[in-house]
Amino acid sequence: MSLFEKHGADCADIEGVDNYNACYGGTAAFLSTMDWVNSPAWDGRWGIVVCVDIADLNAQQAFLNGASAVAMLVGPDAPVVLAPERASHMIHSWDFYKPVGWKDSFPLMRDGKYSIECYMGCLDGCYKSLCNRVYGDEATGRAPAPDLAPEAGGTGNLVRDHGYFVNHCTSTYLCKRAFKRVCENAFTEGGVAGDGVNGGGKMTIRLKEQLDLYTAKAEPTTLLTKRIGSSYTASCYTNLYSLFATVKEALVGKKVVVYSYGSGSASTMYRLHVNALPKMDMGIFERLDKRVVHEPDSYLEMIDAYSTGTYGRFGFKPKDWGGKQAGVYYLTEVDEWGVRTYEQQS
Amino acid sequence: MSLFEKHGADCADIEGVDNYNACYGGTAAFLSTMDWVNSPAWDGRWGIVVCVDIADLNAQQAFLNGASAVAMLVGPDAPVVLAPERASHMIHSWDFYKPVGWKDSFPLMRDGKYSIECYMGCLDGCYKSLCNRVYGDEATGRAPAPDLAPEAGGTGNLVRDHGYFVNHCTSTYLCKRAFKRVCENAFTEGGVAGDGVNGGGKMTIRLKEQLDLYTAKAEPTTLLTKRIGSSYTASCYTNLYSLFATVKEALVGKKVVVYSYGSGSASTMYRLHVNALPKMDMGIFERLDKRVVHEPDSYLEMIDAYSTGTYGRFGFKPKDWGGKQAGVYYLTEVDEWGVRTYEQQS
Repeated sequence: MSLFEKHGADCADIEGVDNYNACYGGTAAFLSTMDWVNSPAWDGRWGIVVCVDIADLNAQQAFLNGASAVAMLVGPDAPVVLAPERASHMIHSWDFYKPVGWKDSFPLMRDGKYSIECYMGCLDGCYKSLCNRVYGDEATGRAPAPDLAPEAGGTGNLVRDHGYFVNHCTSTYLCKRAFKRVCENAFTEGGVAGDGVNGGGKMTIRLKEQLDLYTAKAEPTTLLTKRIGSSYTASCYTNLYSLFATVKEALVGKKVVVYSYGSGSASTMYRLHVNALPKMDMGIFERLDKRVVHEPDSYLEMIDAYSTGTYGRFGFKPKDWGGKQAGVYYLTEVDEWGVRTYEQQS
Repeated sequence: MSLFEKHGADCADIEGVDNYNACYGGTAAFLSTMDWVNSPAWDGRWGIVVCVDIADLNAQQAFLNGASAVAMLVGPDAPVVLAPERASHMIHSWDFYKPVGWKDSFPLMRDGKYSIECYMGCLDGCYKSLCNRVYGDEATGRAPAPDLAPEAGGTGNLVRDHGYFVNHCTSTYLCKRAFKRVCENAFTEGGVAGDGVNGGGKMTIRLKEQLDLYTAKAEPTTLLTKRIGSSYTASCYTNLYSLFATVKEALVGKKVVVYSYGSGSASTMYRLHVNALPKMDMGIFERLDKRVVHEPDSYLEMIDAYSTGTYGRFGFKPKDWGGKQAGVYYLTEVDEWGVRTYEQQS
C-alpha cells in the first residue's frame, strides 16, 4: 500500500486483499476484480490484478524452479474481454500443499501420479460444465452463448470453435498433456470423455492431427515457461503473455480458452475474446536474452540462500548477488520482528 | 469441498477461495461474493460466506481469546440489502501480524497505541470517503444516495441518518471507542474531524448525548462479543448477529453502518438496509448459557493444547476434552504429513 499512500490519503480507498489457493490465487483475484468492475459498487476506476508466487522446490527439483509476476489492468472497453460464461471445479485433495509450521518452506507433493489425476480430473469437470454453459443445456433450458450458437457458426466442439488454449502448467509438458486431454474431451464419440480422475477417452481424430492442433492452438502459449520454468500462480497469465507476445496481431478477432488450476484443488475454465492487443512489453523474449547465466553450483547456492536460508530466519539483510536492475524493488531487510523492507533500485 | 462432493460431481462447480487479511478476511469474502452475485457470471445460485479465524493469543492475553464463526447466504431478494456505495481505506502498517515461520503461533502486536491509531485512522478514512459517496460530492458531480438525498430526509449526518453502527472490535471497549470516533467525525463543526492517525476532534454534542447514542445505536451489537471474547475476522458479523438477535423486529426498516477493520491494514465501511429479519437462530444467548464453565487452570491447559501444543506438530490425534456436541465437526487427526481429518460428531 505504500506505493499508493505516497500519492495522498485519497489513494487509500482501494478494495481487495490477497486471494490464496496454491496456483489458483491469480485467477481468484482476476475473477473477483472482474466481478467488482461489473458490480453496482464500481465507480469507474481501474482494477489491478497482480499474480506472483514463491516457487520454491527442494534440492531434487531445484532446477524446475521458475519465477514470474504478471500484472493486469481490468476495466471497461478492454482490448481483451472475458466472456460471462465460465465453469469451475473444486475438489477436496492433498495433492500439493504447505502445512503451516512445517520444518522447511518446500511444498509437499507425495504422489506425482495423484497430483496429475487431480489436475486432469478438474480439467474434465471444468470442460464438461463449460460446454454445458456455452453450448446450452436442454435439461435446464439454458441458451447457448451468442458467439457459439449454431447460427453464429458454433460447431459444438470447443477446440474447433476457439483459436487458442492457455493451460496452467508447471512444465511445458503438462501444457501439452492438458491440451491433449481437452482434445480427448472434444473429439470423443458421444461427447465428453473424461469422467473425473479416471482418464480421458479415445480420440476420434488421429494423433497427428491432435499434435498439429497443439502446434497451432497451444504451443505459442508455452514459449515463456519453456525459458523461465514453473511460475505457479502466475502460470496461466505468463502463458497468456507468451501467446500475445508470440502471435501478436494475428490474435485479433480470435477467442482463447484458459484453464487455471491450483492444488487443493481449485480450477476454472473461462474464455477471452481478443478485440485488440493489450498494451504490453512485446520485447519480453529479447529481455530474457539479457539474463545472466549462472553455473549449476552458483545457481544452487542462490536458490538455497532465498529458500532454506531465509525460511524462519529473522534479523538479517540479504546478500547482494549483483546484477540488480534499475526500477526493480528488492528486499533490503527482514528485521528481528519479521518486518520486511523493500527498496526500488535507482 | 468434501461437503459438496458427496452430493455429486455437479456440485463441484463452485467459485471462490480463501480471502486473507487478518480480521478483514470475512469482509473481503463478503464483498467478493456480493460482486459475484451482481456479475454477468452469476447463474442464480446462492453464495455462502464463511467467516472464521484462529484467535490465538499468548499467555499474557490468553483470557482475551474468543471464538466464533458466522456463515451467511448471499443472493437476490435478500431481507438485508447491501447499499452500492461503500468506502475502503488501506494503509501499509505492521500493527498486528504473524510472520511466516515464526517460532510460535501468536500474533505480534508490539505497540498497542499504534495499533489503535491504525484502526482509528482507517475509520476516519472510511468515514470521510463514505460520506463523500453517500451525500454526494460537488467536486466530482456525484449525486447523493437515493435514501440520503435531502428530499428523502437525509440530514448529511451519518449518525443521525442511520439506526445502528456495527464495528469490528477485539473487545467491547473498542466498539465503544470506535462509535465515539464516528461521532467525533459526525458532530464536528466544519464536517470531518479525523485526519488519519492524529485523533478525532471535539464533538459539538455533549458526552451524555454521545453515550445515549451509543446505548441506542451501538451497544446492542456488542452483547455476543461481551460473552465470547474477540473473534477476529468473524467480529463484524458476530456483532451484526448480536444486533439482529437483540433488537429483532424493531430493526426492520432501519439502516445499519458496518465498519470492518483488519490489521495490515485493510478496512471498509458499508451500509445495510434491513427490509426483514434474516432467518437465523435467535436463541443464541440461551445456547451460550449452556456452555461448560472451566476454572482458569483447566482453561489455560486447553488453550495451550490447541495453540502452543499443536503449532508445527504433526502425527497426532487431539485429546478428547469431553463435551462434544452432536452435529459439530471436530479435528480427529493431523498425520505425519500435515494432512488434517475432521469428523462430524453423531
